[in-house]
Amino acid sequence: MTYRAPINDMLLALNHGAGLEAAVKAGHYGDFDADITAAVLEEAGKFASDVLAPLNRVGDEHGIKLEADKVITAPGWPDAYQRWSAAGWNAVSGPEAFGGQGLPLAINAACTEIWSASNIAFGLCPLLTLSAIEALDAHGSAELKKIYLEKLISGEWTGTMQLTEPQAGSDVGALRTRAERAPDGSYRIKGTKIFITYGDHDMTDNIVHFVLARLPDAPAGTKGISLFLIPKLLVNADGSLGLRNDIYASGVEHKLGMHASPTCTMTMGDKGGAIGYLIGEENKGMQCMFTMMNQARLGVGLEGVGIADRAYQQALAFAQERRQGRAVGKAGDGSDPIIVHPDVKRMLMQMRALTAAARTICYATAVALDISVRAKDAKVRSEAAARGALLTPIAKAFSTDIGNEVASLGVQVHGGMGFVEETGAAQHLRDARITPIYEGTNGIQSIDLVTRKLAANGGASVWGLLGELTSIVKRVEASNNPAFGTTGPKLRDALASLERTSKWLLERVTSAPNDALAGATPYLRLFGSTLGGCMLANEALAARDLGEGAGDPARYVTLARFFAENISVQAPSLERAVIDSAEAVNGADAVLLA
Amino acid sequence: MTYRAPINDMLLALNHGAGLEAAVKAGHYGDFDADITAAVLEEAGKFASDVLAPLNRVGDEHGIKLEADKVITAPGWPDAYQRWSAAGWNAVSGPEAFGGQGLPLAINAACTEIWSASNIAFGLCPLLTLSAIEALDAHGSAELKKIYLEKLISGEWTGTMQLTEPQAGSDVGALRTRAERAPDGSYRIKGTKIFITYGDHDMTDNIVHFVLARLPDAPAGTKGISLFLIPKLLVNADGSLGLRNDIYASGVEHKLGMHASPTCTMTMGDKGGAIGYLIGEENKGMQCMFTMMNQARLGVGLEGVGIADRAYQQALAFAQERRQGRAVGKAGDGSDPIIVHPDVKRMLMQMRALTAAARTICYATAVALDISVRAKDAKVRSEAAARGALLTPIAKAFSTDIGNEVASLGVQVHGGMGFVEETGAAQHLRDARITPIYEGTNGIQSIDLVTRKLAANGGASVWGLLGELTSIVKRVEASNNPAFGTTGPKLRDALASLERTSKWLLERVTSAPNDALAGATPYLRLFGSTLGGCMLANEALAARDLGEGAGDPARYVTLARFFAENISVQAPSLERAVIDSAEAVNGADAVLLA
Repeated sequence: MTYRAPINDMLLALNHGAGLEAAVKAGHYGDFDADITAAVLEEAGKFASDVLAPLNRVGDEHGIKLEADKVITAPGWPDAYQRWSAAGWNAVSGPEAFGGQGLPLAINAACTEIWSASNIAFGLCPLLTLSAIEALDAHGSAELKKIYLEKLISGEWTGTMQLTEPQAGSDVGALRTRAERAPDGSYRIKGTKIFITYGDHDMTDNIVHFVLARLPDAPAGTKGISLFLIPKLLVNADGSLGLRNDIYASGVEHKLGMHASPTCTMTMGDKGGAIGYLIGEENKGMQCMFTMMNQARLGVGLEGVGIADRAYQQALAFAQERRQGRAVGKAGDGSDPIIVHPDVKRMLMQMRALTAAARTICYATAVALDISVRAKDAKVRSEAAARGALLTPIAKAFSTDIGNEVASLGVQVHGGMGFVEETGAAQHLRDARITPIYEGTNGIQSIDLVTRKLAANGGASVWGLLGELTSIVKRVEASNNPAFGTTGPKLRDALASLERTSKWLLERVTSAPNDALAGATPYLRLFGSTLGGCMLANEALAARDLGEGAGDPARYVTLARFFAENISVQAPSLERAVIDSAEAVNGADAVLLA
Repeated sequence: MTYRAPINDMLLALNHGAGLEAAVKAGHYGDFDADITAAVLEEAGKFASDVLAPLNRVGDEHGIKLEADKVITAPGWPDAYQRWSAAGWNAVSGPEAFGGQGLPLAINAACTEIWSASNIAFGLCPLLTLSAIEALDAHGSAELKKIYLEKLISGEWTGTMQLTEPQAGSDVGALRTRAERAPDGSYRIKGTKIFITYGDHDMTDNIVHFVLARLPDAPAGTKGISLFLIPKLLVNADGSLGLRNDIYASGVEHKLGMHASPTCTMTMGDKGGAIGYLIGEENKGMQCMFTMMNQARLGVGLEGVGIADRAYQQALAFAQERRQGRAVGKAGDGSDPIIVHPDVKRMLMQMRALTAAARTICYATAVALDISVRAKDAKVRSEAAARGALLTPIAKAFSTDIGNEVASLGVQVHGGMGFVEETGAAQHLRDARITPIYEGTNGIQSIDLVTRKLAANGGASVWGLLGELTSIVKRVEASNNPAFGTTGPKLRDALASLERTSKWLLERVTSAPNDALAGATPYLRLFGSTLGGCMLANEALAARDLGEGAGDPARYVTLARFFAENISVQAPSLERAVIDSAEAVNGADAVLLA
């Protein structure tokens, strides 16, 4: 079962749900030619279907091997990677000064969904490289940029991000890897990192590691962390590759999924210390990390969207093929495809609606991040930055949560075949399971949403967004389209719940922080369910305005309605869970530790 | 990480939540001595911790092998099985006339939870044997019982249930395996079955297969299916083992989980036909299957409970051990166990509350099934049978759905370690994933609940249960215990939603069946969330009445409160999903097939 990029859905989400078209019209995208969007997505979809999707199962079955410090990837993977970077896909949103195409992040977001859907373990490698590019571009010296940036942007070399250590996961400040100043201005780094994605591989000649470490005289905690660039192979002055640096993959994890993506333990210092170069200032490494966190978290959210869409496409195809039983009221011999059964329809609609909502949330995040750097007007940029910051934890956590739910539904639609690995449905579930964990667990995202994003400026970012969403609901109601069913009232109720809950949390975030924290996870779900419902309704209205050219506009109305009536409808219950259950959550020790 | 049976929780659930104590007092259990319950569970827990739990990971890693028609189980498994049956565990609820201990099904249900929690792939084998025992005991001839029943009850031989064929899964009536009458009164069976659990193994000398097949002159569909007993090895008149019968494992599945449980393709007829013996009457095989379906479905529900509890215990231990960050407001060096964080508390409470509710629902189902055969009064028996029939699909589907949710939360609590197979959290998720599928998918359970159980007698079974649940809520409110928080109002709202939704569905189940079917899945969830909330509140009241002897009674109040405020609170949203979204579900083709 292959994958076809759902270009119509993606374009509607990007241009209308996420507001790319309006932002371009408002001039926030400078000279970006929006006409190329469809062509880029078509080409990306073609590459994904032809090259990446067929390797997805190969990678799962073969996994990777660690042999004498070297990671060997699955058959066909190095070749696919080289074709991928040669075709320019790594450089889509990279800065033009260093060979990038300078396209908006929003376009790259749609591409990221495509890579993740076709082959999530493959797509993860360039996601990390993108973070490395961002860190280097924003904080690296001109000299380092000159040597490394172009090759990272082209994809000739890949990047890694190395934060985690055994005692330092979510608590990055607890890391112990040490860096010593060397006389030549470089540094020698010694230590061990774990869970390093693509820490080693055989797809490129060199790998550029970005490693957090601590100087001998550094303050404790996150204020004493510095960021270093450590190449696998040192680079000579003429740009040619030099000696092997003292950073090695010393182990790989045996994981539930993502088998084709090496997850390495990296050891530095067995031969005197890895040679590293400071990025930004000493002890300011966390700030460098924060600048790129939005994009990395969005990238993982898009993995959730991608895997959800892949699981949906596969389940839909199965449901149209597999015959069991008859439709209600149909007599005679033979059997019907299981898609005739209402319960199967419900599962498929749930999968599709959740996927579509998460897609638009992610794309809208990308558009906000784009405007925050591209718009001419400083106020527009700053408002977009606040919007992007607000949406990022939702894009990450909601999308990866639903990625898992949709992948699990995909298994269910397949019945007993879903539990058999050869079917492929189970792989999506296994692969998806890491996405709510890495790049900040979804619990961390929820806490970030409550304590930083909601609380910023007394909730101003949230109130601004609520205003926009309310205007969508007004347009739904004004449309007088009976096909919307109870979409309008459901979204109104959801918005009211979101507003009340936001206020309740704001009142407690400093005065009763444990009460606010206890509700963080249901709050994020409430936010995503409300936001997603409004965005899908907005897309349905846009599809109607576009007319038949955008496919069948009625389908988007039914999809929005399904979401509002099944997902957004949960908002009042989630409101009560946040507000009423803080006491039970914080009294949990009596239950858990008895 | 091992497993300890939560004896206090289980006894409270069994005796009070599920009503065993009251039923015993009312005389419905005859001469059953309830004093032995605790001792049986203690012993089962000890065996599970000592013997079965350590083999859980061994089984996952080694899996099974098919070599020359023979399935080889994982190291230590045959020995463990023999110890298990020698200790009498297979015979707990078997009829005394054939060597069983004749204990209530409710006791065996608690034991089934224990086997499933400690080693779900192991526990699955006796679950199938139990179904075989039930079929043979209820429908087999005296001669067949004499030869086979005692050995199945002791566990000296195991049983299989063979329904599924490639084209006949949920649609059993589509099966094609053929049976021909032989002159000696036996039959010759030819055909292929798939997904046959423990279809072959090396843990016992013989295996007794129960196979659905079709006679040459049988009517089409489910009315033309007969049930046959087919021994792996024929049995001589003196009870000794004879020739190898013509039924072989010709393939095994490569599955997401349950690696230690062989899932076989069974081929009959390569050597002239497997010799089989009719169970019940010709063409009445489906009725034989139906009589044992309640117990088999309950058994799978208990697998959901067991895997959930195992995942919870493992996550709780990790959260007490793993240190990251500080509790809010705590300054200074060092870090705290992650259980101090409210979001982690929430995850653990969610896991524990869902598990406790599903446990009681399953135990209550077992008590109803017990009373339906044990009570002296025919009216009591018939009401209990209706209650058992009503609860069975909920016990199966709600428990296995939450089994997956809890296992997934268990992975999440572990963070990155959860994705690493050696941790063991991922195995629970993989193993759990089949339980919503087999023994009737959860979609089938939901449809059964709406179309058969709710609709029976115009909803009388549901109204009777609602009355009992309402009286629990009244007692919660009368308790005036502020620790219950908003439990009372939440359960009242949930009961009102359940009543309205039940009525709405009843009105449509014949007049607009597709509308009723579209809401089946959210209806079952609504039912489970309401029922579970009331049952946990009932247990909390009972714990208070029992006083300190039942552990800390306050913990059960907090647990019930958490469930009501986070799970039961979803009832009004689920009500709306059933009622409002039927149109969007049944209009899904416009979205899915566009």
